Amino acid sequence: MSLGFGRQYLAIPGPSTMPDRVLSAMHRAGPNIYAGALLDMVEGLWPDLKAVAQTSQNVAAYIGNGHATWEAANANMFSRGDKALVLATGRFGHGWAESARAMGIDVELLDFGKSAPPDFGQVEAALRADREGRIKAVLTTHVDTASSVRTSIPGLREAMDAAGHDALLAVDCIASLGCDEYRMDQWGVDVTVAASQKGLMTPPGMGFVWFSDQAKARCAGADLRTPYWNWGPRAQATEFWQYWAGTAPTHHLYGLREALTMILRDEGLEAVWARHEVLASAVWAAFDAWGAGNNAIGMNVASPVDRGRSVTAARIGAPDATRLREWTEFNAGVTLGIGLGMADSSDPACHGFLRVAHMGHCNAHMTLGALAVMEAGMIGLGIPHGPGALAAAAGVIGRAA
Amino acid sequence: MSLGFGRQYLAIPGPSTMPDRVLSAMHRAGPNIYAGALLDMVEGLWPDLKAVAQTSQNVAAYIGNGHATWEAANANMFSRGDKALVLATGRFGHGWAESARAMGIDVELLDFGKSAPPDFGQVEAALRADREGRIKAVLTTHVDTASSVRTSIPGLREAMDAAGHDALLAVDCIASLGCDEYRMDQWGVDVTVAASQKGLMTPPGMGFVWFSDQAKARCAGADLRTPYWNWGPRAQATEFWQYWAGTAPTHHLYGLREALTMILRDEGLEAVWARHEVLASAVWAAFDAWGAGNNAIGMNVASPVDRGRSVTAARIGAPDATRLREWTEFNAGVTLGIGLGMADSSDPACHGFLRVAHMGHCNAHMTLGALAVMEAGMIGLGIPHGPGALAAAAGVIGRAA
Amino acid sequence: MSLGFGRQYLAIPGPSTMPDRVLSAMHRAGPNIYAGALLDMVEGLWPDLKAVAQTSQNVAAYIGNGHATWEAANANMFSRGDKALVLATGRFGHGWAESARAMGIDVELLDFGKSAPPDFGQVEAALRADREGRIKAVLTTHVDTASSVRTSIPGLREAMDAAGHDALLAVDCIASLGCDEYRMDQWGVDVTVAASQKGLMTPPGMGFVWFSDQAKARCAGADLRTPYWNWGPRAQATEFWQYWAGTAPTHHLYGLREALTMILRDEGLEAVWARHEVLASAVWAAFDAWGAGNNAIGMNVASPVDRGRSVTAARIGAPDATRLREWTEFNAGVTLGIGLGMADSSDPACHGFLRVAHMGHCNAHMTLGALAVMEAGMIGLGIPHGPGALAAAAGVIGRAA
Amino acid sequence: MSLGFGRQYLAIPGPSTMPDRVLSAMHRAGPNIYAGALLDMVEGLWPDLKAVAQTSQNVAAYIGNGHATWEAANANMFSRGDKALVLATGRFGHGWAESARAMGIDVELLDFGKSAPPDFGQVEAALRADREGRIKAVLTTHVDTASSVRTSIPGLREAMDAAGHDALLAVDCIASLGCDEYRMDQWGVDVTVAASQKGLMTPPGMGFVWFSDQAKARCAGADLRTPYWNWGPRAQATEFWQYWAGTAPTHHLYGLREALTMILRDEGLEAVWARHEVLASAVWAAFDAWGAGNNAIGMNVASPVDRGRSVTAARIGAPDATRLREWTEFNAGVTLGIGLGMADSSDPACHGFLRVAHMGHCNAHMTLGALAVMEAGMIGLGIPHGPGALAAAAGVIGRAA
Repeated sequence: MSLGFGRQYLAIPGPSTMPDRVLSAMHRAGPNIYAGALLDMVEGLWPDLKAVAQTSQNVAAYIGNGHATWEAANANMFSRGDKALVLATGRFGHGWAESARAMGIDVELLDFGKSAPPDFGQVEAALRADREGRIKAVLTTHVDTASSVRTSIPGLREAMDAAGHDALLAVDCIASLGCDEYRMDQWGVDVTVAASQKGLMTPPGMGFVWFSDQAKARCAGADLRTPYWNWGPRAQATEFWQYWAGTAPTHHLYGLREALTMILRDEGLEAVWARHEVLASAVWAAFDAWGAGNNAIGMNVASPVDRGRSVTAARIGAPDATRLREWTEFNAGVTLGIGLGMADSSDPACHGFLRVAHMGHCNAHMTLGALAVMEAGMIGLGIPHGPGALAAAAGVIGRAA
Repeated sequence: MSLGFGRQYLAIPGPSTMPDRVLSAMHRAGPNIYAGALLDMVEGLWPDLKAVAQTSQNVAAYIGNGHATWEAANANMFSRGDKALVLATGRFGHGWAESARAMGIDVELLDFGKSAPPDFGQVEAALRADREGRIKAVLTTHVDTASSVRTSIPGLREAMDAAGHDALLAVDCIASLGCDEYRMDQWGVDVTVAASQKGLMTPPGMGFVWFSDQAKARCAGADLRTPYWNWGPRAQATEFWQYWAGTAPTHHLYGLREALTMILRDEGLEAVWARHEVLASAVWAAFDAWGAGNNAIGMNVASPVDRGRSVTAARIGAPDATRLREWTEFNAGVTLGIGLGMADSSDPACHGFLRVAHMGHCNAHMTLGALAVMEAGMIGLGIPHGPGALAAAAGVIGRAA
Repeated sequence: MSLGFGRQYLAIPGPSTMPDRVLSAMHRAGPNIYAGALLDMVEGLWPDLKAVAQTSQNVAAYIGNGHATWEAANANMFSRGDKALVLATGRFGHGWAESARAMGIDVELLDFGKSAPPDFGQVEAALRADREGRIKAVLTTHVDTASSVRTSIPGLREAMDAAGHDALLAVDCIASLGCDEYRMDQWGVDVTVAASQKGLMTPPGMGFVWFSDQAKARCAGADLRTPYWNWGPRAQATEFWQYWAGTAPTHHLYGLREALTMILRDEGLEAVWARHEVLASAVWAAFDAWGAGNNAIGMNVASPVDRGRSVTAARIGAPDATRLREWTEFNAGVTLGIGLGMADSSDPACHGFLRVAHMGHCNAHMTLGALAVMEAGMIGLGIPHGPGALAAAAGVIGRAA
Repeated sequence: MSLGFGRQYLAIPGPSTMPDRVLSAMHRAGPNIYAGALLDMVEGLWPDLKAVAQTSQNVAAYIGNGHATWEAANANMFSRGDKALVLATGRFGHGWAESARAMGIDVELLDFGKSAPPDFGQVEAALRADREGRIKAVLTTHVDTASSVRTSIPGLREAMDAAGHDALLAVDCIASLGCDEYRMDQWGVDVTVAASQKGLMTPPGMGFVWFSDQAKARCAGADLRTPYWNWGPRAQATEFWQYWAGTAPTHHLYGLREALTMILRDEGLEAVWARHEVLASAVWAAFDAWGAGNNAIGMNVASPVDRGRSVTAARIGAPDATRLREWTEFNAGVTLGIGLGMADSSDPACHGFLRVAHMGHCNAHMTLGALAVMEAGMIGLGIPHGPGALAAAAGVIGRAA
């Protein structure tokens, strides 16, 4: 017997759960891509894509994944030999740095470990040290999907301003867009990248680069730019195919349309952010209770202000994190996220780390159910844990709703 | 803000949650109904439909709902003026009796209230009193969907045998088939009725009547039989259309095929029963905890042995049951079942009663999530409840898995 | 190699081709059946169902197929021993008569063969002969799906009026509703039956009975009525479940909603009729050309006015009809309808008869493609046929559009 | 009234018609991308992707469209300043050249117009002239989607061999793969590019680059290579994410799996090619008849051997091509392809050119239906055309099946 037969719940930090409405919208015959309803529909996507990043400036859509958007942003921002200052608070900050370096960009990396937010003093110092103005852009994750560390973008902006440096500010919102509060224009961000499969609730296959008018103007001569990555025609096409540098991703567009309607019209962006805030708090309350007393359970990021609202990374003494993941998948229909890039000498295979996503199309039932299943697994496996976690999480939900 | 945006969970006792595989199987072009693959596929449905009711005898499938199967069973078993002995332990026992009476059958009703199993002594007495043998069949629900009372079919069979009466035994398994253990042949049942939308995990629209060779032989002359209800050609068609008395319910058949494969092949019928047993136990553990101390929460059926494994009916002092249902639907994405037929003078609008389904395509995540959401709602609404319910439910799951 | 790989076209007279929109609407999670959006949606179905039959009176919806609607109509119109006058112009007229007879109704059958419309003089004579007024209703098909003979309902009404008989007029529109012009109220029809899977473009599984206020009043005491067939609560429910005598056919309702929107709003009922008129004319033009000269091809019904607009029955000398059907299915992706009930001594296995449907979700491409494939098959199989059929059919389309 | 209500047929040369099986396979919840069934499934894709291009060497899959594969191939084959010899027989040959030039590659373009195959003598001469060996690769379309000109790849190989030049041979099969015969290894091709939305019958969103071991070795140092385009890890991943340089295109993979099964297992690649050969011949037969006599209708490519088997470009004197396209879309449910890149001084808006696709999931019914609808439109619009086209096309089908 398995208690897992039923709807599977994928609580990994992307791909997130796709709404039935999104999947149904994608289940349709191919459209004409030269004229007609598709073209009209797509015109309505652009303002909504801008709204979800809270910008009134420019957006380019790519057939690609999150890594593609790193490369797209890099190709548009840099010429070979330009310098980037990259902040890393987990695996994905390093990833963007590696992408840049492999493209011929000179990368200065500020590594803040895997559990803490950036030290903006170091950022300011690095920018001040760049007397020749070789740093063209500062690259950071908003929330690192691997560590769940959240970086304060207003704080980073302040440090850049304090240094009086005019580098562009580029932010990877892959794990956070449509989950955490994010205000591109108000926060002074020049380039934002994100992908379809997390807060945007659409299958993997599309990526997005939003860019400021300033970035557009300043990067006009970037020599890493290629026809596919060039954000110019994508943001301002004169023929429909130029939006996509070729054939449009027809079915993803229908799914994305539905997802954006759900976010912006049916629920409202601020309500979406508020929902994620509460769901995250419920997860944290459970971990606080499980970790109380002297046991091996604890969240990766100490302070709530530094935690992403879409995913919670946590340690459960090796090999218990892995055992628990396997238990919940087989016995209860819940797939938790693996620890990614968190291995160290004490846990080389990363069996003491897991992630719980609460991202995108996710409600109280799904999140509380995942927590309850985790506690059932701890009981089943004899993993020591503090009491009261589920009541605490339910309390967070009950009081917030 | 609402914490309900996300996948909706329908925890009403039917229609139950349809597996994606079932819905996908139904999303297809219409097939040829005169020759080809559909006809081959349907031949494989019959043994599987028999297996799910644990019989090797006969089955007739109808385009219809549960009420249609009552009428079909009645039409095949009775002539006008024949007598039926009907046991009622909730709304649906009365419903079958009303169906029979309206068809011209003389009904003797044994009403055991809404919270208790039948008193088999009364059944035996009623049968002994039928000296002329006017009672052609005893009709009962296995689990009454409204009250969640479960009737022991072996116990009923024993009472009938003790009375030495040869009436047929007909059982309504609409709420229980594919959830509670049920063994038609071994338990000496003559007629079983069920529908597609509960344990069989397929949208409403099909009903089934299984019947014994004895019932077939004895009822050959039933004069209520009409072409549509006649179980003869449906169970033994010489042309494909006769299985359905006309056009086949093509899309439901594809869904049903998938559902039966999931039950019988992928999981196994005994594992399905065992899963429901554990999920029900988890729900009961939560209600036991919530109801501990002096508050208004309690399950409708006192003894676990008398409770259905697919649905739990409970009272939460009016109007709190209704307030809680509304809270979970709006705030958390969970739709609970209303109280049905449980109104009385102290609660004429039935606002003190609800039902939680744990039926069909349902796993630990879905069930624990529903319970956690209910507790969140009690907290949010200030409904008094005993502590420890979620940990207790998680414990049941954790220890059983 | 087969030239059939591609989208299959089911040109059988039911189930017809379901629109993707209908199938997509049905691919969704189960809804709450006690409150909420489903209930609101269903209220909008009733006026649209009435509009499609052009009546302002009453409609009852059943979970069932076309045969179920015969039985439903019979059960509501008749008491045991009442008399029905049934007109047969093909297999399905006989079918309704058999249904009635098996339910205990005294049937007087007027058999007009398999290729000709009714002789209304005989109808008038039969009614005049019923001095005692035993005939409670006249039953007829509008279009017999097997023969494709169409009966003039205004002509029949006129004959009934001429006879001065007050029998109800009941019409089987299973093959014609949403295809052929039909005006229930204007034509003086009392009872109309139809099903979901033909002109209504929805999978098999629902049937409908429209009835006049006169029928409602006059049949109030019909003793064949049972709870499931009773049209009263279905047409005028006080609780939602009464519309369906139990659980609603949730997924079919979503499909039907979409289909009715397509017919009534997107295209318009008169445009739907006009489309079928042209498509039928194109098919007839092809058959006229194929049959010109001395060969074995010819339509079943001589005069266009007597032919249904949704299906064309034709002979192609045995065994060529069967050979051609097999050829088009394997080689070209087109499934044609078999001859049904047309066997006779010269062709006992009915290999000289087939049917081409042009019914429901069907356009010029689908219909002309089917004709072209048939001609390809005739060429491939060496079946003699007259020239110019495809050009003639294309001409009908081209001049009408 | 419109005769277009019914299933729409998209006869544009990509996206082609997606099989229901492909769309259904894509309609599913997101999978775990770190372990489990998806990873196992993907291992089986690689040999099938190689089989469809008839190579045993290497394949890299990209989230991207056809243009992305041009850029991917360029990035892997070239360093800045390297030279490419590009053959153009229509819009898309020019497109690949432009992509290369914009990436910093020195392009020598051989333009053979829009209606004729390459002159291999010129190719040989150009290669002989490259004494310094600056030409690293010869780039060509197999079939140019815009002109429908087909280039003989064995002929091109022969010319390259005759010149004794060791440039790589790179072929764009975007419009032809899975339609026209293509044998990468046997024909001595080094690099093949294609995308998902034409012969591979899957929605736009994936592209593929097959490459020979020789290309792999020789291009190891290409300095245009970036992390996203790098074919190395994509063809030989050590971790699953490396196949996709990030998150996998989960839903497209399920669709592609189904499409490859249909092509390779259910039908067979050679049968697929043969089917396209016949369907193309039927289309050509119709155009031959329509164009007979002195009218403005004619195919773009004179000789059948030089025509692609997946799409036929044709002229119908301006503005009749555009009028006909509009007529068939509105009146008959068929969307034909526009003329692309064929405008000239006599027809600046390209209203005298259209394309009929017969590509991918396409059978006799679909193709003959499209032709019949075109003829209906010519009749409706009064466009002069020769007689007998439909009978001729049906004859091709009938005799070949």
